[in-house]
Amino acid sequence: MDVTEDQLLAAIHRVLSGSGPEVVVGPGDDAAVVRPGSGELVMTTDAMVEGVHFRTDLTTPRDLGYKAIAVNVSDVAAMAASPRFALCALTLSPAIEAAWVVELAGGMRECCDEFALSLVGGNLSRGAEVSIVVSVTGEVVPGRAVRRNGARAGDRLVVTGSLGGSAAGFRVSSQRSWSDDERDAIRRHMRPTPRVGEAGVLASHGVTSMMDISDGLALDLSRLCRASGTGARVELARLPVHPAATPAEALGGGEDYELLATLPDSGAVEDARSELREAFGVSLSDIGAIIEAKGEAKSEGALISVDEDGTEGPLMTGGTNAGWDHFR
Amino acid sequence: MDVTEDQLLAAIHRVLSGSGPEVVVGPGDDAAVVRPGSGELVMTTDAMVEGVHFRTDLTTPRDLGYKAIAVNVSDVAAMAASPRFALCALTLSPAIEAAWVVELAGGMRECCDEFALSLVGGNLSRGAEVSIVVSVTGEVVPGRAVRRNGARAGDRLVVTGSLGGSAAGFRVSSQRSWSDDERDAIRRHMRPTPRVGEAGVLASHGVTSMMDISDGLALDLSRLCRASGTGARVELARLPVHPAATPAEALGGGEDYELLATLPDSGAVEDARSELREAFGVSLSDIGAIIEAKGEAKSEGALISVDEDGTEGPLMTGGTNAGWDHFR
Repeated sequence: MDVTEDQLLAAIHRVLSGSGPEVVVGPGDDAAVVRPGSGELVMTTDAMVEGVHFRTDLTTPRDLGYKAIAVNVSDVAAMAASPRFALCALTLSPAIEAAWVVELAGGMRECCDEFALSLVGGNLSRGAEVSIVVSVTGEVVPGRAVRRNGARAGDRLVVTGSLGGSAAGFRVSSQRSWSDDERDAIRRHMRPTPRVGEAGVLASHGVTSMMDISDGLALDLSRLCRASGTGARVELARLPVHPAATPAEALGGGEDYELLATLPDSGAVEDARSELREAFGVSLSDIGAIIEAKGEAKSEGALISVDEDGTEGPLMTGGTNAGWDHFR
Repeated sequence: MDVTEDQLLAAIHRVLSGSGPEVVVGPGDDAAVVRPGSGELVMTTDAMVEGVHFRTDLTTPRDLGYKAIAVNVSDVAAMAASPRFALCALTLSPAIEAAWVVELAGGMRECCDEFALSLVGGNLSRGAEVSIVVSVTGEVVPGRAVRRNGARAGDRLVVTGSLGGSAAGFRVSSQRSWSDDERDAIRRHMRPTPRVGEAGVLASHGVTSMMDISDGLALDLSRLCRASGTGARVELARLPVHPAATPAEALGGGEDYELLATLPDSGAVEDARSELREAFGVSLSDIGAIIEAKGEAKSEGALISVDEDGTEGPLMTGGTNAGWDHFR
């Protein structure tokens, strides 16, 4: 590193200066001070670690900064809340130049501007590898946060957008040339779009449970079902597989940051679908139903997949579509 | 790692379950949901990185967990605010066992219980080295947060407790036996005490600026002076040097997490000192005065040290008492 910590912080602050009137004390003091609204606070944190979530030779710092904010915004959106404030703890390896860090901050600023949140503080450390840990605080009308545990047998199971694009984008990124679909997949991998407005629409149509798909549909659905004490029946032919992705990538690829939600009936699905198409140009796919889980399966959730020819089988959450379990 | 991410999270949640009525949704969903009070929010984040801030063979996971929370609580205290909620993003290397993580969570819980905050959420990643990134949100009566930029020429400069203990503790930790003072220094290094109540007392006596001393008195004082557009005159004989520490460790050692503050006059210092002694058994040392900074020095701050025999010289913020600049 070619500059001191204080010089680097000053450079970052210049990129980030653009806070709204709700920020009383921005970066540079012991802590930031902000004025919240009257809602409940929604809080989340997520890490991006070099060699695990990214490689500095395969991504630009600007995309990386954008994504580090976006994945946290996605978690806030999944509660049907609005993101408001972000903090970032940055660990830098000796190989990193100051210009790289300023670009990273620029990418963070881009995502913060797009989703109307303020990056109010941060921390710099050195380390053997780069890591970017962001925490985001959002707000929601008291009692209106949507959890994972509200799915009930009979609910329809829906997902926004398409699945598998991020995994496909990662897979094809080392190619020399790309089709349009592959380019789109790479963009989804590098700059996922958190579904903030879309979550609000789903909430207004009576969504009973919701989460974002960060570790792959199969694994994340098993978590939703376990939290709700239910099972699920997924019709594989209805999965909105990204045109550059394989079905296995759609089920287990991870990092799509689409919303997985349950709605009480097909009428609600129709209404939400129309509104999402009109307001955001985003699709909503009805991929199956929530079912009862009996006996021992109740604690684990019971996931059933249905083939195109109607054959039923267990929806695997291990194996090739295991999702991103960071400890396997 | 001998368990899956979900199993490890479940084990951590059992250690951490003890949230108060202000926690609407605790760990386990996409994000936590909490009910704030009516104050302004104070937000900070800090990282502890293996090989930089700690070594797993030299610290227990319980102490490490305690310290990871404590250093953030200290930043919230330095704004004269009350810590309320914490998030933790944990990166684990393959060498780490599940039992180590549960002990780490236990140490976090200890510190959270001691300072009445709730650990409401977190994230697990893998990586080549362990890192623990905590963010803490606190609350303060609107307009009452104490910043670094309010010091004025003529103010008295004070510090709580003693300085250099943490650096001395780190230095002597590899010895085979220790004096009582050295044991106390090691304890200060392993389990620093954030000055939450003490900050409130200082605020009630009209403190004009305040920060916590995490990077050494000399460097942190230069930051306070730069933010305030002032200089400072430090009487070295008045420094509350920890009995196991050297004067250089007191000036530049870092990680003491004592409060550095300015008070408008000696009467306020006397009153605050009495109350701190009575309420917390903590000393308050008057170590000098804020002075005007003229010309070019204004942007950098002008720091003067005064020897026991009255000789004045520049208070060095580089060199042997450089403080912890993580990028030098």
